[in-house]
Amino acid sequence: MLHFDSDYMEGMHPRIYERLGKINLEQRTGYGRDEICDSAREKIRRSCACPEAEIWFLSGGTQVNSVVIRSLLGLGESVIAADTGHIGFHEAGAVEAGGHKVILLPGREGKLTAQAVENYAAAFYRDENHAHMVKPGMVYLSHPTEYGTLYTKKELEELRKVCERYRMKLYLDGARLGYGLAAEGTDVDLRVIADCCHVFYIGGTKVGAMFGEAVVFTRHMVEDFFTIVKQSGGLLAKGWFLGVQFDELFSDDLYLECGRNAIKTAERLKEGLREKGYSFRIESPTNQQFVILENDRMEELKKFVSFGYWEAYDEARTVVRFATSWATPMEAVEELLALL
Amino acid sequence: MLHFDSDYMEGMHPRIYERLGKINLEQRTGYGRDEICDSAREKIRRSCACPEAEIWFLSGGTQVNSVVIRSLLGLGESVIAADTGHIGFHEAGAVEAGGHKVILLPGREGKLTAQAVENYAAAFYRDENHAHMVKPGMVYLSHPTEYGTLYTKKELEELRKVCERYRMKLYLDGARLGYGLAAEGTDVDLRVIADCCHVFYIGGTKVGAMFGEAVVFTRHMVEDFFTIVKQSGGLLAKGWFLGVQFDELFSDDLYLECGRNAIKTAERLKEGLREKGYSFRIESPTNQQFVILENDRMEELKKFVSFGYWEAYDEARTVVRFATSWATPMEAVEELLALL
Amino acid sequence: MLHFDSDYMEGMHPRIYERLGKINLEQRTGYGRDEICDSAREKIRRSCACPEAEIWFLSGGTQVNSVVIRSLLGLGESVIAADTGHIGFHEAGAVEAGGHKVILLPGREGKLTAQAVENYAAAFYRDENHAHMVKPGMVYLSHPTEYGTLYTKKELEELRKVCERYRMKLYLDGARLGYGLAAEGTDVDLRVIADCCHVFYIGGTKVGAMFGEAVVFTRHMVEDFFTIVKQSGGLLAKGWFLGVQFDELFSDDLYLECGRNAIKTAERLKEGLREKGYSFRIESPTNQQFVILENDRMEELKKFVSFGYWEAYDEARTVVRFATSWATPMEAVEELLALL
Amino acid sequence: MLHFDSDYMEGMHPRIYERLGKINLEQRTGYGRDEICDSAREKIRRSCACPEAEIWFLSGGTQVNSVVIRSLLGLGESVIAADTGHIGFHEAGAVEAGGHKVILLPGREGKLTAQAVENYAAAFYRDENHAHMVKPGMVYLSHPTEYGTLYTKKELEELRKVCERYRMKLYLDGARLGYGLAAEGTDVDLRVIADCCHVFYIGGTKVGAMFGEAVVFTRHMVEDFFTIVKQSGGLLAKGWFLGVQFDELFSDDLYLECGRNAIKTAERLKEGLREKGYSFRIESPTNQQFVILENDRMEELKKFVSFGYWEAYDEARTVVRFATSWATPMEAVEELLALL
Repeated sequence: MLHFDSDYMEGMHPRIYERLGKINLEQRTGYGRDEICDSAREKIRRSCACPEAEIWFLSGGTQVNSVVIRSLLGLGESVIAADTGHIGFHEAGAVEAGGHKVILLPGREGKLTAQAVENYAAAFYRDENHAHMVKPGMVYLSHPTEYGTLYTKKELEELRKVCERYRMKLYLDGARLGYGLAAEGTDVDLRVIADCCHVFYIGGTKVGAMFGEAVVFTRHMVEDFFTIVKQSGGLLAKGWFLGVQFDELFSDDLYLECGRNAIKTAERLKEGLREKGYSFRIESPTNQQFVILENDRMEELKKFVSFGYWEAYDEARTVVRFATSWATPMEAVEELLALL
Repeated sequence: MLHFDSDYMEGMHPRIYERLGKINLEQRTGYGRDEICDSAREKIRRSCACPEAEIWFLSGGTQVNSVVIRSLLGLGESVIAADTGHIGFHEAGAVEAGGHKVILLPGREGKLTAQAVENYAAAFYRDENHAHMVKPGMVYLSHPTEYGTLYTKKELEELRKVCERYRMKLYLDGARLGYGLAAEGTDVDLRVIADCCHVFYIGGTKVGAMFGEAVVFTRHMVEDFFTIVKQSGGLLAKGWFLGVQFDELFSDDLYLECGRNAIKTAERLKEGLREKGYSFRIESPTNQQFVILENDRMEELKKFVSFGYWEAYDEARTVVRFATSWATPMEAVEELLALL
Repeated sequence: MLHFDSDYMEGMHPRIYERLGKINLEQRTGYGRDEICDSAREKIRRSCACPEAEIWFLSGGTQVNSVVIRSLLGLGESVIAADTGHIGFHEAGAVEAGGHKVILLPGREGKLTAQAVENYAAAFYRDENHAHMVKPGMVYLSHPTEYGTLYTKKELEELRKVCERYRMKLYLDGARLGYGLAAEGTDVDLRVIADCCHVFYIGGTKVGAMFGEAVVFTRHMVEDFFTIVKQSGGLLAKGWFLGVQFDELFSDDLYLECGRNAIKTAERLKEGLREKGYSFRIESPTNQQFVILENDRMEELKKFVSFGYWEAYDEARTVVRFATSWATPMEAVEELLALL
Repeated sequence: MLHFDSDYMEGMHPRIYERLGKINLEQRTGYGRDEICDSAREKIRRSCACPEAEIWFLSGGTQVNSVVIRSLLGLGESVIAADTGHIGFHEAGAVEAGGHKVILLPGREGKLTAQAVENYAAAFYRDENHAHMVKPGMVYLSHPTEYGTLYTKKELEELRKVCERYRMKLYLDGARLGYGLAAEGTDVDLRVIADCCHVFYIGGTKVGAMFGEAVVFTRHMVEDFFTIVKQSGGLLAKGWFLGVQFDELFSDDLYLECGRNAIKTAERLKEGLREKGYSFRIESPTNQQFVILENDRMEELKKFVSFGYWEAYDEARTVVRFATSWATPMEAVEELLALL
């Protein structure tokens, strides 16, 4: 059985496992106040060319989204996301449980446009009843998006501008950031992201780590963030187990290396599928590929491969998702292609 | 200057003012535990033919929506509303501040259809990832809707059925209920509503009262509701001032009388506008009328009349709202017609 | 039957009722944006000698406490109160429902001392684990306290100082403020309060109004407070019904007049009880009197008078509360004295 | 430098590290729905003799407390804890951030007595104003307590009874449960706990795991708990990394073995200190020892050992905490003793 369901089906990169072994029995101060965490922070700051960045290590994406959003929004503020955004659907109402409304705007291939945000914000402030509504206080992006697509540098800069104009925070969810950074042809690297966003996170769980995400505030923005993380149940006692993973991922370009394997295998999958005449729901340059399959073939395939069901394409066809990861061997892709 | 902006621009019906004077200096037990509140409750129970109903008096619509929704939903549940529903926009994120997501489904002339709810709920439970999403736990209706339209008895019964099928609560926001009950041709009265809904409220603020809404749980559903209302800041110390208004409104059909005046004047307005060739954005049988005006004429009219701006119809025309109320004199309508 | 249970058993002062009648059928803009509310605000600003004060009218004390506290505290902050403070017990967990912990410090006769606050704050910041705890962000006082006692000008100034030192907000709950202002020998007036506190409220419900409290921010402190009030269910559609009550209370010293009647009758009650040899649980200069009664006598008295049960004094005696109000006639006090 | 600050300064037990290596690169279904988690659940059920128990793996103690408490309490309910209870102070207001008040009752050596709970609950329901207060809905215990003390079987049974009488849930925080189970002379094992409590958790973070706690609902109690955990940011994508740690800890009695090492070293420490004439703040049978040190000696000791500052004992002496753990070598204890 082959598994292409998702990019978090394997454990951690062997280099991380090895590193854990080295430090496992050393005694350390808890809560992320140890020197390994500090080392990881410093490496990330350098990669972002953002020396004043404040960096925190949390356990998972929903936790990060929930804590970051509630710590940055005022009581009367909402967060804007694309109508395919993860916080709109698959986070079990975490943002609302923190007290805030998610405003969904129509996205384009999973992406929010500066124009759509501008239109919404302008209409909001034009509405004479806007004090009866929650004010847009933040723009939430996923990069790569839930459809595997990527923002360009120009698009991020435009989004930053509209955020500045309406005093909104720009927040980028990088659950799969490694796969975005390693994509062919992208002009967005960590420096660009740090330059455009108030806050973003570098996903570990889906990109080589056992678990963990690195939250980067590009400047000081939240008082008592440590306390808020603790209050939200997101503070790990043995915080160095988060830090050490990122310290390793940001040594010798391991994070990019993880990204590249996923891209390489995904590109081979795309190429192979194209040769066989398959078409795609969307042109994705990253590790998630959305392929249109005939329903019969899909049912047949299920016997040998697990994958994600995405949406009905038409009566006879379905869009399915194949996800590669840092751990996908090229052989598995070839096997999959042979089956299709 | 004529005012047709909204239905809460005047104070209270003179009969209520008079009644207040009679009881003003009598000493009473607070928090709605007095005999006037009990009398009002009994009258409402009779009007609903629902002897076991539990009835609470709160101060305003957003307060009611917020308290009722958070007291009835589980932590992992959301509330479904039409995409024009009041809780989706103009309640400043009150539902989300209480921790719950509002799911907006496309409505038809402001109304939610049983079919749309069924489709959503069925798709939700079919989705293998639904545990990552909040479960629909309640359906929220406005009657009349934000577009002045009304559900039929049959539509409410169908909504009840789909709610039963998916174990959701059915909740009806009756901020303008009096104008719905008094509309021509409706087959929905308080008995039908009490029969179909788990909970609803009878709007006072917009229908003759100084302030106040009567929440009707058609059966026992919430433990410690008194405490929850207090906690939510919705418990009035001198609760009899809420009860006495409803006691008066439900004496000698005053509530319906209030409704009828708004309908009578709205019908005259409709008729007059039709004669003059105006057309309507929607066919509304209640006190809110959505008229399409040419922009020039609208600007001219603003000098003499205040009214609600609703939405752009096209480049040259705008939809505006005229609202009549229990207090609108027929002369004001004739004056308005003369101006148009 | 005589009633001395509480100070919110009567309706509104006759002058307010009369005033309501005069404006009842005039059309007005809602949500507190009318000229009567503005007039009331201006009168209050003058009484406080605080021209830049921002003033809002809400419906009741728990609502005010809940909205003010949650709008001023950061996520990681708590509010300090005396261990007899109203927010600690009788507000149904409203502060916690808004997400914040209430820290109770031992009070002296219902009052919090600057020293106790200083000790707590100093110990907090000295504790190396304080980031695992919520930071004190606000001090909450009641004036008069729940025991009828009053702060002096000096005590308020000291509290202001400790609040400044630890960057905490100073908030005064004036549910019974009128009775404090009218007390004999107090050196605290509205100017002193406005000078010392970041925010406070002037209680209407218990001091002559039908309902309503005037929240005074002595400077701009909360963005989007209108939206937050709406979100919290505290925004009255016909807001002028709140404003008009304060406009009347702050005309011709009516608010003080209301206060004085309660003080005059309470002083007579005290004097009469002393003459009869009764003793008091606490020396209260305001409208609440805490008298120690023998249990037999208390039971006997219940047949003719209703009053508040406060606490057991010892096996044979009980502390009961008699509350006078703006509406208490001297005859009722004499009747009560005759019974005792 | 010796470290006796806390019991979470080392990583994971070597057997767990080894086990991780074995499964690291195998592909698995996420979110705790894999067969390793199921195996761990089954082992725990057997250890508790509670075949119907529902078991969830979360990341840390504050997270568990916060999620369990908010998922079990109604909106109008509070949780009772001893005045030394962890949720009262060192969880950054997590319970309040979830909307609930923590009621602190005076404990005895860190323990809550059934009598204190009974007194509180009885007084609550006797109070005629109790609807204005939050109702006690849960009793929270720590076992071992924050002072290292242990409940007896009889005490737990009495607490169960008072909980049943007042319809409260009984919840036991077992952050250090392993050290309680391994203590000498205790008559409380997992079966007793499962029999007495509605819900409890088995601490991993402090007892041999890298991170993780196993929450045990002794019967079905919460609908949609998966969704609530996700919403709270507590759902680990690669859930098997939690499950596998407990699967290992509950194989060949590893959990008890971890406990025993801490007890053995703590007992040696106690014995050694007693011989040297030291006295203890409290008689603790578990891994935390609270020793009274003269301030001079304490300062001197700091140069060689890190430990926890607990509280001032008197002007000249301080209570400090030494914590042993599953990883403490006996040599370290002997070294410490030599220094004292």
